[in-house]
Amino acid sequence: MSFNTFGRVFRFTTWGESHGPALGAVVDGCPPGLALSEADIQPFLDKRRPGTSRFTTQRQEPDAVRILSGVFEGRTTGTPISLMIENVDQRSKDYSDVAKAYRPGHADYSYDAKYGFRDYRGGGRSSARETAARVAAGAVARAVIPDVEIIAYVAEIGGDAINRDNFEVTQIAKNPFFCPDEAAAARWEKLVDEARKAGSSLGAVIECVATGVPAGWGAPLYAKLDSELAAAMMSINAVKGVEIGAGFEAARLRGEENADRMRPSTAGSNQPEFLANNAGGIAGGISTGQPVVVRVAFKPTSSILTPVETVTREGEATDIVTKGRHDPCVGIRGAPVVEAMMALVLADQKLLHRAQCG
Amino acid sequence: MSFNTFGRVFRFTTWGESHGPALGAVVDGCPPGLALSEADIQPFLDKRRPGTSRFTTQRQEPDAVRILSGVFEGRTTGTPISLMIENVDQRSKDYSDVAKAYRPGHADYSYDAKYGFRDYRGGGRSSARETAARVAAGAVARAVIPDVEIIAYVAEIGGDAINRDNFEVTQIAKNPFFCPDEAAAARWEKLVDEARKAGSSLGAVIECVATGVPAGWGAPLYAKLDSELAAAMMSINAVKGVEIGAGFEAARLRGEENADRMRPSTAGSNQPEFLANNAGGIAGGISTGQPVVVRVAFKPTSSILTPVETVTREGEATDIVTKGRHDPCVGIRGAPVVEAMMALVLADQKLLHRAQCG
Amino acid sequence: MSFNTFGRVFRFTTWGESHGPALGAVVDGCPPGLALSEADIQPFLDKRRPGTSRFTTQRQEPDAVRILSGVFEGRTTGTPISLMIENVDQRSKDYSDVAKAYRPGHADYSYDAKYGFRDYRGGGRSSARETAARVAAGAVARAVIPDVEIIAYVAEIGGDAINRDNFEVTQIAKNPFFCPDEAAAARWEKLVDEARKAGSSLGAVIECVATGVPAGWGAPLYAKLDSELAAAMMSINAVKGVEIGAGFEAARLRGEENADRMRPSTAGSNQPEFLANNAGGIAGGISTGQPVVVRVAFKPTSSILTPVETVTREGEATDIVTKGRHDPCVGIRGAPVVEAMMALVLADQKLLHRAQCG
Amino acid sequence: MSFNTFGRVFRFTTWGESHGPALGAVVDGCPPGLALSEADIQPFLDKRRPGTSRFTTQRQEPDAVRILSGVFEGRTTGTPISLMIENVDQRSKDYSDVAKAYRPGHADYSYDAKYGFRDYRGGGRSSARETAARVAAGAVARAVIPDVEIIAYVAEIGGDAINRDNFEVTQIAKNPFFCPDEAAAARWEKLVDEARKAGSSLGAVIECVATGVPAGWGAPLYAKLDSELAAAMMSINAVKGVEIGAGFEAARLRGEENADRMRPSTAGSNQPEFLANNAGGIAGGISTGQPVVVRVAFKPTSSILTPVETVTREGEATDIVTKGRHDPCVGIRGAPVVEAMMALVLADQKLLHRAQCG
Repeated sequence: MSFNTFGRVFRFTTWGESHGPALGAVVDGCPPGLALSEADIQPFLDKRRPGTSRFTTQRQEPDAVRILSGVFEGRTTGTPISLMIENVDQRSKDYSDVAKAYRPGHADYSYDAKYGFRDYRGGGRSSARETAARVAAGAVARAVIPDVEIIAYVAEIGGDAINRDNFEVTQIAKNPFFCPDEAAAARWEKLVDEARKAGSSLGAVIECVATGVPAGWGAPLYAKLDSELAAAMMSINAVKGVEIGAGFEAARLRGEENADRMRPSTAGSNQPEFLANNAGGIAGGISTGQPVVVRVAFKPTSSILTPVETVTREGEATDIVTKGRHDPCVGIRGAPVVEAMMALVLADQKLLHRAQCG
Repeated sequence: MSFNTFGRVFRFTTWGESHGPALGAVVDGCPPGLALSEADIQPFLDKRRPGTSRFTTQRQEPDAVRILSGVFEGRTTGTPISLMIENVDQRSKDYSDVAKAYRPGHADYSYDAKYGFRDYRGGGRSSARETAARVAAGAVARAVIPDVEIIAYVAEIGGDAINRDNFEVTQIAKNPFFCPDEAAAARWEKLVDEARKAGSSLGAVIECVATGVPAGWGAPLYAKLDSELAAAMMSINAVKGVEIGAGFEAARLRGEENADRMRPSTAGSNQPEFLANNAGGIAGGISTGQPVVVRVAFKPTSSILTPVETVTREGEATDIVTKGRHDPCVGIRGAPVVEAMMALVLADQKLLHRAQCG
Repeated sequence: MSFNTFGRVFRFTTWGESHGPALGAVVDGCPPGLALSEADIQPFLDKRRPGTSRFTTQRQEPDAVRILSGVFEGRTTGTPISLMIENVDQRSKDYSDVAKAYRPGHADYSYDAKYGFRDYRGGGRSSARETAARVAAGAVARAVIPDVEIIAYVAEIGGDAINRDNFEVTQIAKNPFFCPDEAAAARWEKLVDEARKAGSSLGAVIECVATGVPAGWGAPLYAKLDSELAAAMMSINAVKGVEIGAGFEAARLRGEENADRMRPSTAGSNQPEFLANNAGGIAGGISTGQPVVVRVAFKPTSSILTPVETVTREGEATDIVTKGRHDPCVGIRGAPVVEAMMALVLADQKLLHRAQCG
Repeated sequence: MSFNTFGRVFRFTTWGESHGPALGAVVDGCPPGLALSEADIQPFLDKRRPGTSRFTTQRQEPDAVRILSGVFEGRTTGTPISLMIENVDQRSKDYSDVAKAYRPGHADYSYDAKYGFRDYRGGGRSSARETAARVAAGAVARAVIPDVEIIAYVAEIGGDAINRDNFEVTQIAKNPFFCPDEAAAARWEKLVDEARKAGSSLGAVIECVATGVPAGWGAPLYAKLDSELAAAMMSINAVKGVEIGAGFEAARLRGEENADRMRPSTAGSNQPEFLANNAGGIAGGISTGQPVVVRVAFKPTSSILTPVETVTREGEATDIVTKGRHDPCVGIRGAPVVEAMMALVLADQKLLHRAQCG
């Protein structure tokens, strides 16, 4: 079933294919009176934009966003905000092979199995290009939660992780990898170059931290803050795993190690101080006031130049090489997308909390 | 925000607290005409039932389910199925300490921050007891997908993993750990006993495999099969991580290693044969026809007898010891819950696929 | 499709059949901290209860409600509130004829066409008995909107309307018809008696007025306050028409007659004063601060003792007489149900407004 | 709360203001493989288009629709279909008075009360112009239900009703009033002209009949076919009442008159023949196989040239005259909108039925 709306009261719906005329999002449920213009959205799109270094796809897309509704005299009106981004640099002729055979690891086979039919140009709807619409919607979400700061970065590429002792938040914007560890960024340059030249691709792990989330957002069970984050992150193309806080590592701790101890605030706050954050800022589905921490695993790009054994639509054996312009590590550009999804979930949760608890 | 309904067309709503008179689920959207009786549901509850070995909580609950609506003359009518399980063995007096101070790792503080108020007896709504209602609903879901076989097992306790060479599916029912590796089960007996006696607790990793899911269930993006599974699993109490297929390991593979190659079926099927299943049976959010594979991380039980530093509701420093009867490893009884959530998601996805693609 | 949940953030799900063991509702999304006990709900059920006069069904049901979850120490906790009402006075043997043939005007044929199967005892899920669950949920909704007063009354039975000059709000509770016009109530006594004795039945029109709704609740389009009310009212068994304010009469007015003029408040309020209320308190889908006014048409009870031409399940011609105990005018007991639906919609809209507009 | 999505599995989201750059709809959940092009949608927009006679607004809008996604090689792909219509003939300067004072009967006051803010140009989001997006989406819905024929017509203007003995379906397209009665159309010409010249406006009643709906679509209660239709129709701007079948008239019939008798089919069908259709093709919320019949009341256009007493945003008394170009009877162009909503509800119900009942 096609479900292209996410969220419960702050909702967004995305549309558009990689090689169609445009793509976009409709954001509904946004509070009125927030300052919003295209200039508030564009910087986030620019971070995600392709073609900015040799480590991303060479497709040249300005990704210029237009606001078509829901904003009047520079402020949101409370009615749906329609955002549109035109596709400029399609080269659909690259995709004739993809029309005939299934790329392993890609959605080609499963789309055909479901719909009997697919827009094969650039992956159609399954293209990572769809995430541009999320990033635009995410910029609107940020206006809803001005006190929350969200930072995502790449923590690992091809199994090579950052050293947390080298963590420098200012580094993230200084290299093409959204990498907070200067030394790791230098290693990754070689690593990604090597994979790219070999016609291969690499996976990545993104971490995202949201600070300034007050205690109390979320729900006890089926729309738990962590459940919503898991759904949000797993809905991004190429994602195969999601962890909250200590994640799988928590399964290896003992109860007394894992439980984040509390102490009266030394800063005079009436909120307790936590001595650790294994919970990733969420307990019982509800935020604790600590930073919300998510880790997201991106598989390596499935579209590669290395020939891979596969079958044609008619069921004949063949090898496939995916020409076209692809990211050697699709996870890199995942960082701004993960940030956007964090913002979108938190904006929704803020409004939901306000609904029930005033 | 309290959201206690899960699913889109096959939906269930759970209700009930650990120490209230009863708990239950309302299953809505179930197809009509399916054979269903309490005897079809009870065995799944019995698997999850507390008090069956010294490795689970000693609370004695028969967990006898009653069907209050939606079934007539042994068949589902298509109208809502109300399931109720009475609580029998509450001992609320154990919880006076919990009323006054926050158990680290538990939902106490975040509930109070959200609602200003909580039912502290046994964790109230945040108790793992709620999962009995899910298991009952999951048994209904299984009737919707009779061709799908779902098996969950514990793959790791306290960091000690099974050896996949020892995997014997018949072992799972033969030990109190849902463990497919006889040798690991023997080790875990000692491991869990030791933790229990020390007043501590352990985490676990559950794996769940669904076979017989045809290619084509799911959605490209926001209700992707993997996104729905991630939300479902992360909605279970104590879960901190979810992986599909190779999960985080996929982020460490190269593109050509990760992509599951396809070959014409040697069995004469018109579906291709996959040479691996790193995708966990899901590509582009849609099932591929391979087994659907999910891994779920459970943190160690937060309610432990070891004293832990915390604060009272008034913000005073204190130590807390959680009396009451608790699972030394809440992940163990997570296996039937994970199975139930897998069934519930797949039943919903089957009906959604039928809605759109007939 | 079976959809038994209503509402967006304040949601309720009902379950249960006329002749099953019980029926109930789960209310989710209720704000925490509200005083609530069974004693707050029971009076509303008592108003709707069958068997209280000869003008309603003679089935004897105490309709005693139990709260099974979501309330702790007399206050709502913010988690789901499960309400249960046991059925006591079923006489299923009355329904053997209904199992074999379709009652004209009833849901028998359409249920069979949809589900291939139905619980024919007392109409099963299509019985007006389901509305007991709504009335119970509605009592919870009233706790959410303490400043709103809701009154429904019968404005017309069998085409005989009240005289608005005789309107006395105190009369409503003084006769078995929820009739605000003493003279009309006297006429209806004869009218309904005559129909009952003739084995026939009558329709009715209910009006419902909610005062104290502030300006600003609602939505511009698809969840407009009027659209939600229309859905809510039309979801009640036997309802065939819904009007807001002047309703169909508005279609016969000229623009300058219909538009409710505004004037500065003479009472010193900063809200304008309206000189009429053709809009029924709703403009552009959003409340104006005037009383919200809805009119609802109930068809005559379909279960009658007069023989009616119909067909059997096998398609043979036959006549059917519906034995059992039925309301000679199901609309009468519709008044407390319409009130409940008004409360449920307004509670939801209040929370939704708070979500978006703080 | 802004909710701009309608539907459950076949869903559409509309966006756009009267005087913004464009408006549109995103249709999600559409089955794959349906033939669809702009040429399939445009004729429906042309029927609703303004400026085609002196009886509608003189705003000149080509209402040319573009499909931006979800269609590939002339067929729907199953992914979201984005439809856009550019606004061409805005004249925002007409609205300076509206910015300062509230038009009685219009959404001006309630929008300000809700959002503290509104796009006053042409009513912004509350403009009937939004219905162009619905009509476009409705054309997609028709492709989902090719066996259903839907016809809406104006049954009454300003209280002057058609004579059913004169009903000629072919007349509907022959006059600017969608009127099936030639004589009534002639009278309405004078009636509407008179109102237009007087700077006034008139209301209308639209009837809509869908034939070819099989028995079994719908739901017993909260998403009843009639409840969904009521919500859909009441969500249209200016609508104040909705009836199904005999509607309010049913409340004046006796049980044996109202119940539509059934007889074995004389045409050899295994479906019974109904001798009347007071039910409007819906019993117990589920279609009976008879024509689905809805009646919808449109109030007179609120924007009129006659001065009306009102208040300014600052609460001062004033008179307002609404310049700009308005429909003297907004109900007339409601006919294609009502048709679209009928199609949208039925498409959704068809897919929902398929989901649950295969």
